[in-house]
Amino acid sequence: MKIALLGMGTVGSGVARILLEQADLLAERVGEPMTLTHIMARSINNPYDLDLSSVTMVESIDEIVASDVDLVIELIGGVDHTFAFHKQLIQAGKHIVTANKDMLAQHIDELAAMANQKQVQIGYEATSGGGIPIIQPLEHALNAQHVERVMGILNGTTNFILTKMTEEGAAYGDVLKEAQELGYAEADPTNDVEGFDAQRKISLLSRLAYRRQINVHDIPVKGISQVDVEDLSIAAEKGLVMKLIGQSQFDGEMLHISVEPMFLPANHQLAHVRLAKNAIYVEGEAVGETMFYGPGAGSMETASAVVSDAMNIARFGFIGNVAPEQAVAVSAKETAQDYYIRLKTPNSQALHHLKEAGYTYESIHAEKGAFLLSNVTAEQLASIDESLGLSAAYPIVA
Amino acid sequence: MKIALLGMGTVGSGVARILLEQADLLAERVGEPMTLTHIMARSINNPYDLDLSSVTMVESIDEIVASDVDLVIELIGGVDHTFAFHKQLIQAGKHIVTANKDMLAQHIDELAAMANQKQVQIGYEATSGGGIPIIQPLEHALNAQHVERVMGILNGTTNFILTKMTEEGAAYGDVLKEAQELGYAEADPTNDVEGFDAQRKISLLSRLAYRRQINVHDIPVKGISQVDVEDLSIAAEKGLVMKLIGQSQFDGEMLHISVEPMFLPANHQLAHVRLAKNAIYVEGEAVGETMFYGPGAGSMETASAVVSDAMNIARFGFIGNVAPEQAVAVSAKETAQDYYIRLKTPNSQALHHLKEAGYTYESIHAEKGAFLLSNVTAEQLASIDESLGLSAAYPIVA
Repeated sequence: MKIALLGMGTVGSGVARILLEQADLLAERVGEPMTLTHIMARSINNPYDLDLSSVTMVESIDEIVASDVDLVIELIGGVDHTFAFHKQLIQAGKHIVTANKDMLAQHIDELAAMANQKQVQIGYEATSGGGIPIIQPLEHALNAQHVERVMGILNGTTNFILTKMTEEGAAYGDVLKEAQELGYAEADPTNDVEGFDAQRKISLLSRLAYRRQINVHDIPVKGISQVDVEDLSIAAEKGLVMKLIGQSQFDGEMLHISVEPMFLPANHQLAHVRLAKNAIYVEGEAVGETMFYGPGAGSMETASAVVSDAMNIARFGFIGNVAPEQAVAVSAKETAQDYYIRLKTPNSQALHHLKEAGYTYESIHAEKGAFLLSNVTAEQLASIDESLGLSAAYPIVA
Repeated sequence: MKIALLGMGTVGSGVARILLEQADLLAERVGEPMTLTHIMARSINNPYDLDLSSVTMVESIDEIVASDVDLVIELIGGVDHTFAFHKQLIQAGKHIVTANKDMLAQHIDELAAMANQKQVQIGYEATSGGGIPIIQPLEHALNAQHVERVMGILNGTTNFILTKMTEEGAAYGDVLKEAQELGYAEADPTNDVEGFDAQRKISLLSRLAYRRQINVHDIPVKGISQVDVEDLSIAAEKGLVMKLIGQSQFDGEMLHISVEPMFLPANHQLAHVRLAKNAIYVEGEAVGETMFYGPGAGSMETASAVVSDAMNIARFGFIGNVAPEQAVAVSAKETAQDYYIRLKTPNSQALHHLKEAGYTYESIHAEKGAFLLSNVTAEQLASIDESLGLSAAYPIVA
């Protein structure tokens, strides 16, 4: 199989490395060589000092389209121009493997339908959970049942930041700076810290889990940039650990889906997922709870998922893309849940108010105005915020 | 696709239930109906009150072989006669899905080679980790790299027993009895508690991870029936938790593989896998650490893995069975590791002996003769046992 690679950044150089250095292993497992014949990249980042002399460097997608490559690995990112590239490649009958979650989360329905028509396979294991196999298990292993819930830590950058804040008591801004220095966060961290990266991933995973079209922009999202480290240490007294959680639950009609910082009990499996690791819970009707854990990002880690997709396409060719025809309406969770809250101005009147309004609460730190509030809806919470003024309100995973 | 089911026990009845009750879901996802046409079973256990009127009940494998079924789901267990059945079915060109780890761990190499010749697919996701997708991820997702290590809690019964012993301080015999009453352990628990079930699973997983033939009987195995609950509570003082661990590591020549009770630090992900849950770590060259967690057994849980295999065969037909030609020599781990040890007769001379022999140790509970011993080989441990007399010695996972 002849392969073109678009993009030679962090993941792209890892992919080139596996294709070149593990050529024997791949050929043995696939039954034919996986040959990297073309690279298109703005700049050739070659941290692994690979010998690229046998690879043709091209400058335009038209050269790839016109070439005899069977499969194109797209790792350039971006939305509009890569969407156009994908359409061009599908029309030309080229299989595609990509880690481009931004573009796919918006356009996968159109691309999958087009690809099915053209008998082209699209592999996107690397879009969610980095090197963790999750797209394939959802498609081919947890498929004999209705999935009821998906929930996970889907972003390595924010998990790194929250872990450091929790364990070292460091402030958000300081940890973000450290993460940027270590390469765990980008210069402009917005996509990660405001939850948009996790929003795209929970969209792609939920689409596959429930086989419904989802408008990614409809998914309610809150990031971690406003998280005060003091809330983490107060909540720790009650054994609670904060994680940025993407989750969805489908009741057959409405998809309840969100990305937001939540507190988990310390004995929850997800509470032990530290630093840049990711983990995804999937609850199925028959299988119950399963969890997939591993690296959320990284050059070689993500590259291994990309190459695995390419190998499967080399072995099995077109097997059909999941292309749900029905769209689903989405909303945040509407049922009551427990919350950690903190008052802007701690005062005893607030307590009276909560008591009189019939709420069940437990004080964690009276002086600082921190409470656990049982069984309230988002609507009730908004009204409490209006009357008392909250500086923090985070749901607690049951 | 026409399907025959051999066996209507716990998992078999779950499979029948999914095939019948989720027929629409399966047909939609597969693109054709998955029709249960034949059942062969000594007795029809029908806990889900299924309407089996459309299914032909047969009494001999010859009737299945002569029938027009495309795929046979074998859930009767046993080794010799089911091995014969499998060969007959493969010769007749019937695809097979099975949860029979006892038979497969012994005969998979011969069956896989025969099946490849006959273009027959064998699905065995349900043999390891119950409902957890792990066979498929090893085969199709973590395949772009060398796997370096596999390690897991592979048996629900022993994990249930160890969890209860750890958390409730109950003795082995009492918890075993409780597990038997709850249906978590069989009347004759030997296979589970002596580690044989885990031995078969680590064999099947390692074969796939390293693509080598393995003689399952060569794998060193220790069970939990000799575990004294007192060691669990002493070790807990140092934050250690006992699990029955199946593990393997391949250095390219020798496969270091074993099943034995080990202590893990409480902050290790596997330490949080409680009761009948299972979890499997896979470390790959590129991907690093990944973990798969979920139900280790159960009727519907395991059935969902069986049906998923059947769906993939219905969709993709014969895709080839992994059939390594090279066998690998196995041995227990030979490098030094840390141990928890307890002396049969606590005495201060033992300390002198350890000190003089140059060992590094830390006393946990002097009166009870419990120590942490650093960095000793199995050979050194045997000599310590010989000179001092040990009532317990368990490796500690680093």
